[in-house]
Amino acid sequence: MLTTHPFDDDKLREECGVFGIWGADTAAAVTALGLHALQHRGQEAAGITSWDGHAFHSHRAMGHVAGNFDKDSVIRALAGRASIGHVRYSTTGETALRNVQPLFAELASGGFAIAHNGNISNAMRLRRELNRRGSIFQSTSDTEVIIHLVATSTQPSLLDRFIDALKQVEGAYSLACLTEEGLIACRDPLGIRPLVMGRLGEAYIVASETVALDVVGATYLRSIEPGELIVVSEQGVRSLRPFAPERPRPCIFEHVYFSRPDSIVDGASVYSVRKAIGAELARENEVEADYVVPVPDSGVPAAIGYAQESGIPFELGIIRSHYVGRTFIQPGDQVRHLGVKLKHNANSALIAGKRLVLIDDSIVRGTTSLKIVQMLREAGAREVHMRIASPPTRHSCFYGVDTPERKKLLAAQMSVAEMNAYIKADSLAFLSMDGLYRALGEDGREAADPRYCDACFSGDYPTRLTDQEDLQQHGELLPAANYG
Amino acid sequence: MLTTHPFDDDKLREECGVFGIWGADTAAAVTALGLHALQHRGQEAAGITSWDGHAFHSHRAMGHVAGNFDKDSVIRALAGRASIGHVRYSTTGETALRNVQPLFAELASGGFAIAHNGNISNAMRLRRELNRRGSIFQSTSDTEVIIHLVATSTQPSLLDRFIDALKQVEGAYSLACLTEEGLIACRDPLGIRPLVMGRLGEAYIVASETVALDVVGATYLRSIEPGELIVVSEQGVRSLRPFAPERPRPCIFEHVYFSRPDSIVDGASVYSVRKAIGAELARENEVEADYVVPVPDSGVPAAIGYAQESGIPFELGIIRSHYVGRTFIQPGDQVRHLGVKLKHNANSALIAGKRLVLIDDSIVRGTTSLKIVQMLREAGAREVHMRIASPPTRHSCFYGVDTPERKKLLAAQMSVAEMNAYIKADSLAFLSMDGLYRALGEDGREAADPRYCDACFSGDYPTRLTDQEDLQQHGELLPAANYG
Amino acid sequence: MLTTHPFDDDKLREECGVFGIWGADTAAAVTALGLHALQHRGQEAAGITSWDGHAFHSHRAMGHVAGNFDKDSVIRALAGRASIGHVRYSTTGETALRNVQPLFAELASGGFAIAHNGNISNAMRLRRELNRRGSIFQSTSDTEVIIHLVATSTQPSLLDRFIDALKQVEGAYSLACLTEEGLIACRDPLGIRPLVMGRLGEAYIVASETVALDVVGATYLRSIEPGELIVVSEQGVRSLRPFAPERPRPCIFEHVYFSRPDSIVDGASVYSVRKAIGAELARENEVEADYVVPVPDSGVPAAIGYAQESGIPFELGIIRSHYVGRTFIQPGDQVRHLGVKLKHNANSALIAGKRLVLIDDSIVRGTTSLKIVQMLREAGAREVHMRIASPPTRHSCFYGVDTPERKKLLAAQMSVAEMNAYIKADSLAFLSMDGLYRALGEDGREAADPRYCDACFSGDYPTRLTDQEDLQQHGELLPAANYG
Amino acid sequence: MLTTHPFDDDKLREECGVFGIWGADTAAAVTALGLHALQHRGQEAAGITSWDGHAFHSHRAMGHVAGNFDKDSVIRALAGRASIGHVRYSTTGETALRNVQPLFAELASGGFAIAHNGNISNAMRLRRELNRRGSIFQSTSDTEVIIHLVATSTQPSLLDRFIDALKQVEGAYSLACLTEEGLIACRDPLGIRPLVMGRLGEAYIVASETVALDVVGATYLRSIEPGELIVVSEQGVRSLRPFAPERPRPCIFEHVYFSRPDSIVDGASVYSVRKAIGAELARENEVEADYVVPVPDSGVPAAIGYAQESGIPFELGIIRSHYVGRTFIQPGDQVRHLGVKLKHNANSALIAGKRLVLIDDSIVRGTTSLKIVQMLREAGAREVHMRIASPPTRHSCFYGVDTPERKKLLAAQMSVAEMNAYIKADSLAFLSMDGLYRALGEDGREAADPRYCDACFSGDYPTRLTDQEDLQQHGELLPAANYG
Repeated sequence: MLTTHPFDDDKLREECGVFGIWGADTAAAVTALGLHALQHRGQEAAGITSWDGHAFHSHRAMGHVAGNFDKDSVIRALAGRASIGHVRYSTTGETALRNVQPLFAELASGGFAIAHNGNISNAMRLRRELNRRGSIFQSTSDTEVIIHLVATSTQPSLLDRFIDALKQVEGAYSLACLTEEGLIACRDPLGIRPLVMGRLGEAYIVASETVALDVVGATYLRSIEPGELIVVSEQGVRSLRPFAPERPRPCIFEHVYFSRPDSIVDGASVYSVRKAIGAELARENEVEADYVVPVPDSGVPAAIGYAQESGIPFELGIIRSHYVGRTFIQPGDQVRHLGVKLKHNANSALIAGKRLVLIDDSIVRGTTSLKIVQMLREAGAREVHMRIASPPTRHSCFYGVDTPERKKLLAAQMSVAEMNAYIKADSLAFLSMDGLYRALGEDGREAADPRYCDACFSGDYPTRLTDQEDLQQHGELLPAANYG
Repeated sequence: MLTTHPFDDDKLREECGVFGIWGADTAAAVTALGLHALQHRGQEAAGITSWDGHAFHSHRAMGHVAGNFDKDSVIRALAGRASIGHVRYSTTGETALRNVQPLFAELASGGFAIAHNGNISNAMRLRRELNRRGSIFQSTSDTEVIIHLVATSTQPSLLDRFIDALKQVEGAYSLACLTEEGLIACRDPLGIRPLVMGRLGEAYIVASETVALDVVGATYLRSIEPGELIVVSEQGVRSLRPFAPERPRPCIFEHVYFSRPDSIVDGASVYSVRKAIGAELARENEVEADYVVPVPDSGVPAAIGYAQESGIPFELGIIRSHYVGRTFIQPGDQVRHLGVKLKHNANSALIAGKRLVLIDDSIVRGTTSLKIVQMLREAGAREVHMRIASPPTRHSCFYGVDTPERKKLLAAQMSVAEMNAYIKADSLAFLSMDGLYRALGEDGREAADPRYCDACFSGDYPTRLTDQEDLQQHGELLPAANYG
Repeated sequence: MLTTHPFDDDKLREECGVFGIWGADTAAAVTALGLHALQHRGQEAAGITSWDGHAFHSHRAMGHVAGNFDKDSVIRALAGRASIGHVRYSTTGETALRNVQPLFAELASGGFAIAHNGNISNAMRLRRELNRRGSIFQSTSDTEVIIHLVATSTQPSLLDRFIDALKQVEGAYSLACLTEEGLIACRDPLGIRPLVMGRLGEAYIVASETVALDVVGATYLRSIEPGELIVVSEQGVRSLRPFAPERPRPCIFEHVYFSRPDSIVDGASVYSVRKAIGAELARENEVEADYVVPVPDSGVPAAIGYAQESGIPFELGIIRSHYVGRTFIQPGDQVRHLGVKLKHNANSALIAGKRLVLIDDSIVRGTTSLKIVQMLREAGAREVHMRIASPPTRHSCFYGVDTPERKKLLAAQMSVAEMNAYIKADSLAFLSMDGLYRALGEDGREAADPRYCDACFSGDYPTRLTDQEDLQQHGELLPAANYG
Repeated sequence: MLTTHPFDDDKLREECGVFGIWGADTAAAVTALGLHALQHRGQEAAGITSWDGHAFHSHRAMGHVAGNFDKDSVIRALAGRASIGHVRYSTTGETALRNVQPLFAELASGGFAIAHNGNISNAMRLRRELNRRGSIFQSTSDTEVIIHLVATSTQPSLLDRFIDALKQVEGAYSLACLTEEGLIACRDPLGIRPLVMGRLGEAYIVASETVALDVVGATYLRSIEPGELIVVSEQGVRSLRPFAPERPRPCIFEHVYFSRPDSIVDGASVYSVRKAIGAELARENEVEADYVVPVPDSGVPAAIGYAQESGIPFELGIIRSHYVGRTFIQPGDQVRHLGVKLKHNANSALIAGKRLVLIDDSIVRGTTSLKIVQMLREAGAREVHMRIASPPTRHSCFYGVDTPERKKLLAAQMSVAEMNAYIKADSLAFLSMDGLYRALGEDGREAADPRYCDACFSGDYPTRLTDQEDLQQHGELLPAANYG
């Protein structure tokens, strides 16, 4: 059976969002609201762990924040003035629930809860070593490796053990951890995934994006720096730099698609960057047309930028249903041939006989683009010129993003001309890599020392990929890494 | 507890959508898809009844179409080549489920299922009379009155009994009925609620809006005319005109807000009408500003029209969360004071220091407008000029729309100046009644013989309101009318 | 799949129990407890309807009383000082829920709820007539016929209409009805099903069996007489005799199996009657043996009576699991061949090498008896002499008991000798009809005018069977009668 | 709220049953049936883990075996020819589910599942040590200690590590473990809890009681000996004796109450022992009476033995409802005063005016006895002489039985005369300790070297109680031991 997300399946998917708060009477309620604002970063499971000064409380569930964390009884059970939370994309069944974060362990030095956005690229190797020494894993999550490294560390304090653990892991991590002594947040030395800090009255908040601050009326203070470790406790906020300094490489795709347009990521307005991308796209790839039409909702800001730069009117040529947030299985194979349009519908009365510039943020498998172009033609569009607000996506991500295998990435298999033929558009063009960096305020991409992780476009991975190396040498990597 | 729809509560709400199909192997699956496309017309319950040549099958449930009608087992149980379906807004609990349509009765002349969009304005009086003669009601729905009128009619055939029944009811009804002999569709003599006909291969479809045809790839044939009754059977399609002819008065608010922008209602593109409304609004109420900002999603087409007419750039100054389709109860009273922004968030980086024209489709209670204006100011907007894409909503609807009591309608209590003061905007203006008619291609509103039902703006109701008269004379109207 | 009730399927099954109370603050709670004590009379659905002086409240559910009626919220919602309840055996699915009693209708003369034990033997004919006149049925229950007869009666008062309705029905009914004015209880003129009256403080109770009085500490007053109608209201208790007097014919099988041993039915202790039956059985069919072994639990009282009369020791040669109250589906066909002993297990250490008198209350299909005898032999029993505490069951019941078709009744197909060969016992004997009447204090069965309905043994039905006659003449009787 | 088990609360409760099978195509189905037959040993949760040669599969759930393990899909998912299962009494909520056995861990040496009946009396001390070395516990179960001892053992093979682990634990354990190599079963050196072995075709079975063999038609081979460890693998069955030999001390209460009457425990028929207990009781405590009446069902075998020895007739003076297997919460406090008789009802017609010998297996808190005596008196009994089929229960059990704190044990607070006054019987007597041993075939209890663990009667505990000692010295023992 097909889901009603045939198009959504054709997106890269951010796999996690984290949130933490220390010092508010309403800690768990605020965390639930913050996670709700981060729901786009992970729709399949959510969890909150709180600390009330005496005990830790945890509630984790498959599904959305709404429905799982909006009951008074649930929130009241998550007692205390401190809590962390997590949203995640993951698989189904029992396996999934035990992987839902925050993960928690009762260590000899006290309770320890952890929420992780990113992916540890040597998790499998570490896991095998820990297992040999007698550590028993509860989940298949790479995140649990950190917990066991903390538990078995011989450092004196819990904080020292935590730093000792992080020094052994490689890859991407933005973490929110909860202990009896305080809230610990940390961003890996390259700062691959985002993490920000805010304030709500006397309380401090850490979150993956600023929208999670906005939703509760908190003030945005600043980004947590790559390689920075923050401890929030009754003694206030401490900032540590436990790692050797490195030149940051934050993920460029956060600006293209992952983050919400109303977020500020590493100091830049996502909406403004996307409009600037649209303007770059218009400058790089001129075309004569009647309307600029976005693929809603992800293509809208770039389409507005494109329309303003080109002077071609912005119009809603495609209408998106409000009611596809939840999976809707097509009832029965028998209707598959109907070409069901559950998510997107063409605005036929508008586009019949018109020449369209169609804007989308990226092409992954290409199946969506193919269907959209076909739908617009059937609705009477005269010409469809597709413009993509990023370079071709040619490589897998190993830092916490759900990408298909390389061979399923259309741009890894075809030239742009072949892609155009495949999606049956009248023309197809992508933003250049330099154009993307320009939209972010750079002069272009400095190949020797790029400012961002753009591995999905360039294949230039900023860290070692130990588990991938093992996989290629030994042909196995069991159990499979579940990204956190 | 507040829901996360504080703003949605501030909309008039269409109360039903209907769908019917005769002659397709996949009747129930197609009906489920059609209802999904009509979900915006009723989010709280859905039902499908099918006929397989031997027996009727029915599945009705509280909640959305997705989740209730996407299991293979459910669809398979709804066997047959003919079915009708219904989505509805209604109240909670056991009472609600028995009111979920299609309603069904095993009459002496065979099974009879009915799905109704509209409201019968003499339902209570008819119900009391039927009850006195021994009819036992299963629901509190006005729609059930029609079934008992059919059951007790002394006319010879089922079709004659149905017409006999409809001649006794007053008000608004667009109906899809299923019998052993055929699918019957009918629109009341004034055509208050919409109803269209389409074709899918050999099968005929009736539906509240054309988007329900689009979703399954069906061809749009035409609107069913006010006062027309259609019978689809193995003998093909018959069109009857059983009622005395009247000048039609279709609901004007379908164009303003209820229908989806990609639908065609009584021959007009809803998106185009809304853009025309925006243009009229710009012409009627000029203002100097930096950006035209819609309240998403309902204000978007009018805002595009306004921007194009005025030359002021269209910008997304407010971002709407994708994840508020389902009710999210605010967890705990304790966070109410935070001014939680679950549905709408200001795009602060964009609007700080700017003068905004804010476009919404209507003002009902005014609570949304007040919050939106306040949110924009807190995000730094310099000026907020609110423009409403319809005249002031001053009267209740008795034809199948959920309106608050008159005293809760802001425009029934205040002048426009007072409303502006209430919502704390820099200026406020509404579209004129003539402007609205102009956007629909008229020269203006002809007071003696208006082309539309605009009672919510004008108080000019096109039918008698028998139950309301009884209510005012006798002070009671039990049991309460549940609109269908 | 087989259920774990292979033996239970081999019992006649009482199909309903009723309970009613008027005048207690805790009406619904008392009703739930009373129904729990009547659970053996119907395990598949239960319902309670209450009246609080202003409104009726109803909760009906598939499943046991425990689990459905033990939540405070459910009981609190069933507000008021009066309520009736019902337990029933019935089929599954949506169809079933709408058949779950009490049935309720809002008549012109006020609300009317009804709970029925028995079966109306002309329900189908009445239903067809009512349907032709415009009555719409909500259920397939025979009981609903009574409601429509009341609704369409032209008698002046609700009580008169109810009596008018009952005069048109034939068959078995013990009824508890709730109206705004009072609790009405009525037993058909032959008194086929039992009904008793009790008192709890100021409140009056009616119930199918005295155990429902015991459970709440109520005082047993007396049986309601055949043909008697009781009205309990604020004016106290009235007894009416609306029917022409007839000689009573209460069901004899209530004493053999249906009623609980601790109940008093029409003045007789069920336990004492069953022990007397066992003694008669011992006198009629002597056998040399080491132990008297009951099939638990139904055969226990007769076995004690048999043991005391014969002097052979009573022993638990078969142990019954406590955990088969709920259906347990055998997991997978693969274990069917194992001869799974989920319900009964032989006490091998006891019976190895012994001669047993095995006592059961009746033989229906014979499948149980066959398995039990085989199980005892495999456990080492030397001889198994089966003795049955009733005459051979040769005829179907049409008065509210679930009996298999005649052709599936072993005794309708075989002689006693053939039955003995079939179940592979060393000998088999049944109680004589006269013996059964003697155990009930008679001299024997008076063929011309028997004191009980013993149609399941004799085929002598005490009422007309109109629907059966129609069925045999016209070959159909749709929709199928669902016993109440 | 009171449950409907007011009397059950007044029993000692066996806390677990285990089952294991190796070598059958239908392993999980057979395990489900076996657990169903052991349901009396633990009603609140159940679990099965299977091994299919490639992977382990596990399903664990709160509630009964029926309802959780009778779906084909569940059983099919538990693929493989080997599996173990567990039923348990435990507390509610999330905490409980993670404690439901079998517990499972993926060790470096492969998967390891364990099901445990008993209790480890130094679990807390071992847990603290393991935690200090970096082991992270997933449950609060004492059983998990064994897993971590295995995981961190430095012995070469998994079997050696398992034996190494067991040598460190003290207390009671009958274990069924599943590994990739075979099924391992082990009984602690004293054999406190029972464990038997059987054969089903080519497969071998281990189970807590023989009834679990009977239910699937398996052959009973023998008891597993105290201190014996059995390995069943593709190489057949091996028996090891890894511990220093000790004189066995199996639990005597299995014979009094825990085990099913149709089981054979350490070679003795439980039914026969209970009848012998009843006969001893009659000899030790003569009384003149009309009837011997058991408290059903636990008092029945002893009552039969008493009746046969004394010549006083055995009668069912108390009837037990079939429908109290599941918890039934009394609906509302309001009916508590009614003295609700949900479980037991007096057979008033029988006992009015009679002198009764009332037989029960034991007295724990005494609340049941008090209510039963009162119920019999209210039903008209002339005299009630209570006789208990075991010595007074004066001490807590630390070997896997749920006993109240000592101060809640009636016999720990009162003399027999005081107890008689408390329960308001006409007389009260307990079986002597020597009488109990005589019923088991001994000459009496040999104080210096008793054959059984009778600590609940004598306070003579056969092992060290390390955690209890720590508790008394340090005043804490956190987290609380959850018995397995």
